[in-house]
Amino acid sequence: MAILVVGSVAFDTIETPSGRAERCLGGAATHFALAASYFTDVRVIAVVGEDFTSEHEDILKRRGIDTRGIEHAPGKSFFWAGSYLKNPNEAQTLNTELNVFQSFTPKIPREYEDTEYLFLANIDPVLQSEVHRRMPMAKLVCGDTMNYWINDHRDNLLGVLGGLDGLLINDGEAKLLAEDDNLVQAAEKILAMGPKSLVVKHGEYGATAFFGKHLFKGNGNKPRLPFRAPALPLAEVVDPTGAGDSFAGGFFGYLASQKEMTPAVFKKAMFYGGVMGSFAVERFGTERLQRLDPMEIEERFALFRELSHLD
Amino acid sequence: MAILVVGSVAFDTIETPSGRAERCLGGAATHFALAASYFTDVRVIAVVGEDFTSEHEDILKRRGIDTRGIEHAPGKSFFWAGSYLKNPNEAQTLNTELNVFQSFTPKIPREYEDTEYLFLANIDPVLQSEVHRRMPMAKLVCGDTMNYWINDHRDNLLGVLGGLDGLLINDGEAKLLAEDDNLVQAAEKILAMGPKSLVVKHGEYGATAFFGKHLFKGNGNKPRLPFRAPALPLAEVVDPTGAGDSFAGGFFGYLASQKEMTPAVFKKAMFYGGVMGSFAVERFGTERLQRLDPMEIEERFALFRELSHLD
Repeated sequence: MAILVVGSVAFDTIETPSGRAERCLGGAATHFALAASYFTDVRVIAVVGEDFTSEHEDILKRRGIDTRGIEHAPGKSFFWAGSYLKNPNEAQTLNTELNVFQSFTPKIPREYEDTEYLFLANIDPVLQSEVHRRMPMAKLVCGDTMNYWINDHRDNLLGVLGGLDGLLINDGEAKLLAEDDNLVQAAEKILAMGPKSLVVKHGEYGATAFFGKHLFKGNGNKPRLPFRAPALPLAEVVDPTGAGDSFAGGFFGYLASQKEMTPAVFKKAMFYGGVMGSFAVERFGTERLQRLDPMEIEERFALFRELSHLD
Repeated sequence: MAILVVGSVAFDTIETPSGRAERCLGGAATHFALAASYFTDVRVIAVVGEDFTSEHEDILKRRGIDTRGIEHAPGKSFFWAGSYLKNPNEAQTLNTELNVFQSFTPKIPREYEDTEYLFLANIDPVLQSEVHRRMPMAKLVCGDTMNYWINDHRDNLLGVLGGLDGLLINDGEAKLLAEDDNLVQAAEKILAMGPKSLVVKHGEYGATAFFGKHLFKGNGNKPRLPFRAPALPLAEVVDPTGAGDSFAGGFFGYLASQKEMTPAVFKKAMFYGGVMGSFAVERFGTERLQRLDPMEIEERFALFRELSHLD
């Protein structure tokens, strides 16, 4: 089934110990859409400026991504500059220019209104709620957020969480949102805020899913054990930017490609998330995600299994 | 087969967010021996003072541990006081009194000289080498170390590493030893120092094993994929002290209980390491490790599998 992602399409200037990339195509929705495109049809809602040319749009179109929801506005696209020189695991933001994103009001093409799989990437929770409200057919909704919204827009964010089947955030964000330094207790508190599941991304250590009582059909009130998926130990992380969004794209894309969301499907989706994240960081920007061979994805999935399974 | 561990038997005073324990039985060899005792026979080489009574010795003997190698010296036992109030993941040392450990020269009972499985817990690498040298029958030797020996006794430590089948250390120690912040590159550098395998413990994120070319029989020169074992997400860590030593005890105890060390056996040993670590932190000191039911261990092993396996 087609999935819809709403989020940023941007240009990034990035420096890492491996080098530097100027104004490469980035943004949460871009990484997400490219990663998900290997599993299912993808629609995008975003806004770009005049610096986003047909050449950039072709990067998405070549992967079959439906770009009719990308609004072209006067001015410049969202721009971010970051450095991983001081800390290879956490970006230091050097510059953020919201540009056309500053006054973004999502416009939803009529053709998108039958969307059943909706992903609310990291944007203002007011916009996340607005898009969700306008997707009456949505039957599986997941989302992401970040420190800024957790700290300064908490009430709006809580409004979003209540409608989510899954929230995907990293360790630090989970502990900040729950105001609890123990991951298990933080997860319980977050699930009590509304999302039916929580996927916490641990970077190089993989990810852990925590499940509420109402995620799976026929699960009754049984508590369900968390699930841990590995990440691939890598000798070189060229550019960590977008790894989490690529994880989300692989995860949600795989979920949407399956008939039913069972515990087994959810677990495989976690593995595909890790797989797509591991590809994303091999090159700057979205370069690696633009041209993957489906066979490479299956081979890496097998590698993830071998890395973590007893037999 | 019986295993021999050389290391500290000590008293610990510990404060954590869960409470405080005064002078409970601790030390790397104690945690290791108790954890390993659920898998195989265990011998201990250590030194204790007059404050170590028959009541303390009975804690080990009740688990069938051979204590003939524990030397009783005039004076007080090794004492450590630490706090986890500031950082629940890393102990702040409040006090260290080496006491009888200061002039420790391992005395090896003749009955121990046929030892085939030797574990060199975290002590002066000069003593680790000395014990190894005096165990001519040793066919599998693993060991641990810590920042102090890595920083200030590097040459002596390098002498130990060359003789190890496996080195078990944590993330920070691995990166310090290799002088490399990337785990995969650090592992390669450490394997080049001599140990045939490296197990890096990540605390709440589990552990990763890296393999050299010569660990498994008939493996030829094939490079082998690392292996990741999970840790159990816990809502309360009562006392993290000794978790790493308990991991090592479960890991090495299981290895020694098997006829041959194959890749499959090594992977299961990693899981049993995580299992024993997860029990250790449930109570202060060694309380939980003193009275486990073998069935509890198997149940938790099954939980670790469910936590990490797709099917």
